[in-house]
Amino acid sequence: MQSKNNYQNKESKKQQKSFSGLTKHPSNPQSNQPSNQPHSYYYQCSTCHKKFESDFIEGSHNYICPECDKNNQKGMPLKGVLQIFYDYEKLKRKYSHSFINKITPGNIFAFSDLLPLKNNVSETFRNLNLPPNSLKKVFHSSPKELYILDETHNPTFSYKDRASVLVAAKAMELGKDTICAASTGNAASSISGICAAVGLNAKIFVPNTIPEEKLIQIKIYGADVEKINGDYDKAFDLAIEASHQNCWYNRNTAFNPLTIEGKKSGAYDIYLQNKGKMPDKIFVPVGDGVIISGIYKGFYDLLLLGLIDKIPQLIAIQAENSSAIIDYLQTQKFKLKKASTLADSISVNAPRNLYLAAESIQESGGFSIKVSDEAILHAEKHVGSKLGIFIEPAAAAAWAGYEKYMESNKNNDEKIVVLITGCGLKDAKNARKIVEEI
Amino acid sequence: MQSKNNYQNKESKKQQKSFSGLTKHPSNPQSNQPSNQPHSYYYQCSTCHKKFESDFIEGSHNYICPECDKNNQKGMPLKGVLQIFYDYEKLKRKYSHSFINKITPGNIFAFSDLLPLKNNVSETFRNLNLPPNSLKKVFHSSPKELYILDETHNPTFSYKDRASVLVAAKAMELGKDTICAASTGNAASSISGICAAVGLNAKIFVPNTIPEEKLIQIKIYGADVEKINGDYDKAFDLAIEASHQNCWYNRNTAFNPLTIEGKKSGAYDIYLQNKGKMPDKIFVPVGDGVIISGIYKGFYDLLLLGLIDKIPQLIAIQAENSSAIIDYLQTQKFKLKKASTLADSISVNAPRNLYLAAESIQESGGFSIKVSDEAILHAEKHVGSKLGIFIEPAAAAAWAGYEKYMESNKNNDEKIVVLITGCGLKDAKNARKIVEEI
Repeated sequence: MQSKNNYQNKESKKQQKSFSGLTKHPSNPQSNQPSNQPHSYYYQCSTCHKKFESDFIEGSHNYICPECDKNNQKGMPLKGVLQIFYDYEKLKRKYSHSFINKITPGNIFAFSDLLPLKNNVSETFRNLNLPPNSLKKVFHSSPKELYILDETHNPTFSYKDRASVLVAAKAMELGKDTICAASTGNAASSISGICAAVGLNAKIFVPNTIPEEKLIQIKIYGADVEKINGDYDKAFDLAIEASHQNCWYNRNTAFNPLTIEGKKSGAYDIYLQNKGKMPDKIFVPVGDGVIISGIYKGFYDLLLLGLIDKIPQLIAIQAENSSAIIDYLQTQKFKLKKASTLADSISVNAPRNLYLAAESIQESGGFSIKVSDEAILHAEKHVGSKLGIFIEPAAAAAWAGYEKYMESNKNNDEKIVVLITGCGLKDAKNARKIVEEI
Repeated sequence: MQSKNNYQNKESKKQQKSFSGLTKHPSNPQSNQPSNQPHSYYYQCSTCHKKFESDFIEGSHNYICPECDKNNQKGMPLKGVLQIFYDYEKLKRKYSHSFINKITPGNIFAFSDLLPLKNNVSETFRNLNLPPNSLKKVFHSSPKELYILDETHNPTFSYKDRASVLVAAKAMELGKDTICAASTGNAASSISGICAAVGLNAKIFVPNTIPEEKLIQIKIYGADVEKINGDYDKAFDLAIEASHQNCWYNRNTAFNPLTIEGKKSGAYDIYLQNKGKMPDKIFVPVGDGVIISGIYKGFYDLLLLGLIDKIPQLIAIQAENSSAIIDYLQTQKFKLKKASTLADSISVNAPRNLYLAAESIQESGGFSIKVSDEAILHAEKHVGSKLGIFIEPAAAAAWAGYEKYMESNKNNDEKIVVLITGCGLKDAKNARKIVEEI
């Protein structure tokens, strides 16, 4: 494991998250966080554990730990990914159960003190609220309780909106008018749609192999798209360079720590919609590892606030031939391998967020499952025809993983949530394969 | 006009909706509606105004007025479309403003006494609730207040779900296990998805010219699809025949009066999300005329309950070359003409609900606007890139109509709602046309 220390056991008093030893912004050496301002937070490197005050990161071109970044090789999992922590001891007093009970799910800004923003921007983003009833009970004989977290009805129809909304809010706070990202799919259409909704420009770098349908959605949202002569890794680097040169805000996944922090709100929504007993297991489709780290981080926040006693087990699902994180968990080594799965949203050679994702799975007491493309297509058809929800292959992978688990765990009395990350309408090509088999 | 008497002025006491003179089911001649049961309602023919008790219609193969149906020609606008009315005087006492204030928008079954169902089925359909925050404010200098009713995030991504959910609830009440429909697009994918979600079978008749993408969505939801050698009109008749022979419940639009009654909930949601002043105008895309009649009916219910004083003006938008209802309003005559517009959801030769739709527009004091395909594509791009909402061409027609209206009504102080009926992801072909123009 890269680090055992990013997530500390609640009982371990010595290791409580604290604001001591922050690296300060050079122009502001006297800053004294945590102050009494409502949103005290700091960044911490997940590799070397160095802490940075918010101004040090946000007032610069730094998105990841400057020291650890020096050791990063292009196209490889990132070292120095930053995490964001808050003044949990202070917030404990505010976030009581009775306070929480008044919060409506689906509002990403509802836990406003647990976001790295200076002001409450809830009203600006009101039209981008997610459906508050995303947790749906599936009637089923076993397991005892089965739910899906249905993200197919989000503003741009995928889980990525949770990250994009937070990134857009930070861009506005920093006075940026353009957000730049490298992506081959959902992340790009998400940030493009969110930018359009709040009046920001989106600049997208894509490999020239991008599927046409995804390009259409990105362009409908009015983004400026640059097709580059190269693969995703090259696009990733170009987007960072262009952001630096043009003073754009960058949304490259994992590279910008707010992508992880934004995705934690899925855990809050599971918590808010679970009156009473929390789920035992959550099945999560895993590509670059940002969603699963985000989900873990959300529960970790709730644990530090004393709102839950235990983080649910996170079960990572990857495609058989795109399983870098599962392989890393088994061998403790990363080996670059060309990924190949029809579930394009989780088809990843080098997961940028490998180390934090692996840690999240392990710390939650979870495990991982590989599924075949055939099982993914079967699951997409099953969820469409039995639950009436049209899902994309990456989301279907989570369901396929859940089914594989149940094969050897029949009649269990668990409470299970399957994370359905995106809508199948975005990928007619694969859906066609399924219906042609009928 | 076909009839001036379907909608009565609130002040006209003599014409109050009443249960007198109901045609009763032969096996139940002594029934005495309205009883004290919570859901007293009756059907009334919109052509001859004859009233029928619910059992007469629901316990039979009748969906439209049996007398007027005799004069119907195949492939023409329907005469004898039924409307459903309630015991408004009794319900007035229950539906007070304070009672209404506790209702959450997006729950189609919330106004349970104003639905033709014997029992409250809210819980069964809980996973199919619509987003409660569908009315979205658009920041704009003129008109004074501009909103869209965003139906792109509904369960199957279109307004049709409002009808499908009510039809499915009635099918279950009647003990039917299969719903049959003729459709070329959204209505079919909607009823297929809703059936899958609640465990019913869907049997769909489509013309063999159906676009492949729509067929994929229908099949993903597990519906049994029959491609027929003929056009929509032939599919319409075959679906009715097959429903009769196999005792399936039929969802042909306008033919089944619950399609209109289901679509009224859009008006309720506009009402619930408009704290205070109601909109002056609502821009509605019009094809077969069921949505606009549904919206009118919803407001009419609220008027009879004394909850609103006035029905907003309904502005009907049709494509230039698919404008049967607008032409009928001008000439009072229907002339069959081959429709041709890229907005397939409103491309209709003979609107089945022509007469009620025309009456709804007129009674609301509204008017109609024709828009070109070019304006529709432009509107789709505008809403995508300025509001971050990916809409289908039919929905874009409503926005194009709103823009055309504003050209000659600049700086007005109205409150306007534009009805955005469906998601653009369903129609990549037309979206491609727009982005290629860029």
